[in-house]
Amino acid sequence: MTEFIPVFQPVLDGNEKKYLTECIETGWLGSNGRFVKKLEKEFSQYCSQKYGSCTTNGSSALDLALRVMKYTYKWEDNSEIIIPSFNIISAAQSCIYNNLKPVFVDAEETTWNIDTTKIEEVITKKTKAIVIVHIYGLPSDVSPILEIANKYNLKIIEDAAQAHGQTYNGKKCGSFGDIATFSFFTNKHVSSGEGGMVLSSSEEIINNVNYFKNLCFTKEKFIHNDLGWNMRMSNLQAAVACAQLEKIENTINKKKEIGSKYHQLLKEIPAKLSCERMPYAENHYWVFGIVINEDVKLSAKQVREKLLEENIETRPFFYPMHKQPVLERLGILDKIKRPVSEKLYVKGFYIPTGLNLTDSKLEYISEKIKKILMY
Amino acid sequence: MTEFIPVFQPVLDGNEKKYLTECIETGWLGSNGRFVKKLEKEFSQYCSQKYGSCTTNGSSALDLALRVMKYTYKWEDNSEIIIPSFNIISAAQSCIYNNLKPVFVDAEETTWNIDTTKIEEVITKKTKAIVIVHIYGLPSDVSPILEIANKYNLKIIEDAAQAHGQTYNGKKCGSFGDIATFSFFTNKHVSSGEGGMVLSSSEEIINNVNYFKNLCFTKEKFIHNDLGWNMRMSNLQAAVACAQLEKIENTINKKKEIGSKYHQLLKEIPAKLSCERMPYAENHYWVFGIVINEDVKLSAKQVREKLLEENIETRPFFYPMHKQPVLERLGILDKIKRPVSEKLYVKGFYIPTGLNLTDSKLEYISEKIKKILMY
Repeated sequence: MTEFIPVFQPVLDGNEKKYLTECIETGWLGSNGRFVKKLEKEFSQYCSQKYGSCTTNGSSALDLALRVMKYTYKWEDNSEIIIPSFNIISAAQSCIYNNLKPVFVDAEETTWNIDTTKIEEVITKKTKAIVIVHIYGLPSDVSPILEIANKYNLKIIEDAAQAHGQTYNGKKCGSFGDIATFSFFTNKHVSSGEGGMVLSSSEEIINNVNYFKNLCFTKEKFIHNDLGWNMRMSNLQAAVACAQLEKIENTINKKKEIGSKYHQLLKEIPAKLSCERMPYAENHYWVFGIVINEDVKLSAKQVREKLLEENIETRPFFYPMHKQPVLERLGILDKIKRPVSEKLYVKGFYIPTGLNLTDSKLEYISEKIKKILMY
Repeated sequence: MTEFIPVFQPVLDGNEKKYLTECIETGWLGSNGRFVKKLEKEFSQYCSQKYGSCTTNGSSALDLALRVMKYTYKWEDNSEIIIPSFNIISAAQSCIYNNLKPVFVDAEETTWNIDTTKIEEVITKKTKAIVIVHIYGLPSDVSPILEIANKYNLKIIEDAAQAHGQTYNGKKCGSFGDIATFSFFTNKHVSSGEGGMVLSSSEEIINNVNYFKNLCFTKEKFIHNDLGWNMRMSNLQAAVACAQLEKIENTINKKKEIGSKYHQLLKEIPAKLSCERMPYAENHYWVFGIVINEDVKLSAKQVREKLLEENIETRPFFYPMHKQPVLERLGILDKIKRPVSEKLYVKGFYIPTGLNLTDSKLEYISEKIKKILMY
């Protein structure tokens, strides 16, 4: 038996220590520190957006994005926001916290991203925006979404939390949104342990982000015209993210290498693997997913349990938004069927892609998966 | 002219660098890292509470505290929460975000803390809790508040964000609340740049805090029965706070020394200074406040502007909650007069108390204040 293989392990061999040491030696711990500004500047440039604003994490970046878009464009309460059903709860939750209504669209079979052919069906007079999420490291098919947004005069909120450095037809993910969000969670291509960013090329929008993330303080400090949050990032977190950003191309290459090896090693298993490439992008494999064929009697949960017995950590796929008990209770669900995202949850899971995984570990993991699914 | 004197500067001469280096060398950046657990254990013990849960900051700690108390004790929407009017907006905002109604009580002249003789006036059948805030480093008069809470069966939420290590009649601030919150903002006695903690001696309450701060994830990951937030602290922030906690007694002593020197140097000015001591506590001077006498024609704002010309940074006092434009707009204000907190805003400000301030700097600052207020 091998030692425990976590789904992710970071490699921190760049300037992380050096930059943290500078934080301590200069006494700059807070959100006014130079690494916060450096990260905002360098990461927004990297993503081809003009401005960035660091946040506590990717979920808070979405809270800010929805709040600021509603505030800037004066959306009414209960305006509708289109979101992929196959997704983490953050975007839906951000809508609800901002008195906006999330409306869900099913996933597409091959890429697991939003099914762009099903977006127009749910557009109403109340629809204000589409949230694009690039699931698991492969971009959504952005062009048809932009066309729809253009046709119906909708804004784009781009959640690129799983797609740092990824491109769609050669253009950076995170550059397509009127506002875009990222996460720098531990397992992301750029990490600060916990952290996030909001990007925009509109100065007004980013000023509003900075306003709402800093408790809506005004020049007359402690007098408030709006309610905000404290969602500021510390200089410590930004220091580490700056160091990680310097190495992002290495990280992406390593991830692509892991993904490519898994494709070779697992090509015979009765399952669909993370899509290798679409005409508009190659997968970056933020995570490497497996969706077991329907005719295999095992659920993802059963396979995951067997893999854990072999010391291999895995994670379940997202549970569809249109089935969430909390959203049912809040009375915001409709009767539309979204079978793909339901199947993805039952049959899907993802396997280790830590940056330090050796070939022999990848072979070990693949062998165990084959044993469970094929023999 | 002296070099610029900021209101606060940290001293980071302990294990900060060593602990951060450990984070990088062990690869633990996220909220499951050992320093998060260490900080939760050591800081809760230090505050005589059984359990702690690290958060992104003090405001989010309050969001969590209000949410969890409402959830745990099944408070109805629009239940009333008593809060000092002389306060930062965070507690009032946390009430509103959780569909609770903040009700404000005026400050007391000497200590600037809540006027305990005015609490019973605002209690109704809907009142569920009192938020105790220890303003600027001097404890509130806890005993009469606990008596009232006991008489009316109210819960105590203790916001000790300005009173790390402070005591009331020998018992630690942060130990009196059914739930208590702290901030580890840059200028706090224990800092992580940005950070906070929720404390409680109830396992149920702290489990609920951990649930709501982690997006309400359950064992069946990605299936949600409630809406939460991501308010997790990174291991980096916790590492620095752990190092700071080791030196807290030095920090408190240094702050007390600065406060004591200011009292000597400024004893003749026509103003009320931060209260030195009450029968139940000595001031720790998280900040050192000055409230200009009414018969002096200058406002705090005017004095602050003159001090800035001398390269001395200061901050205004809190703006009363019962005058906030945003709360007026939301229709939650009443007609009760709260004259003390109004005066404190107009006439009050605070002056530098950085941990590395030399005697000559303290003398320089005091001379300039005297020049403005006396000559």
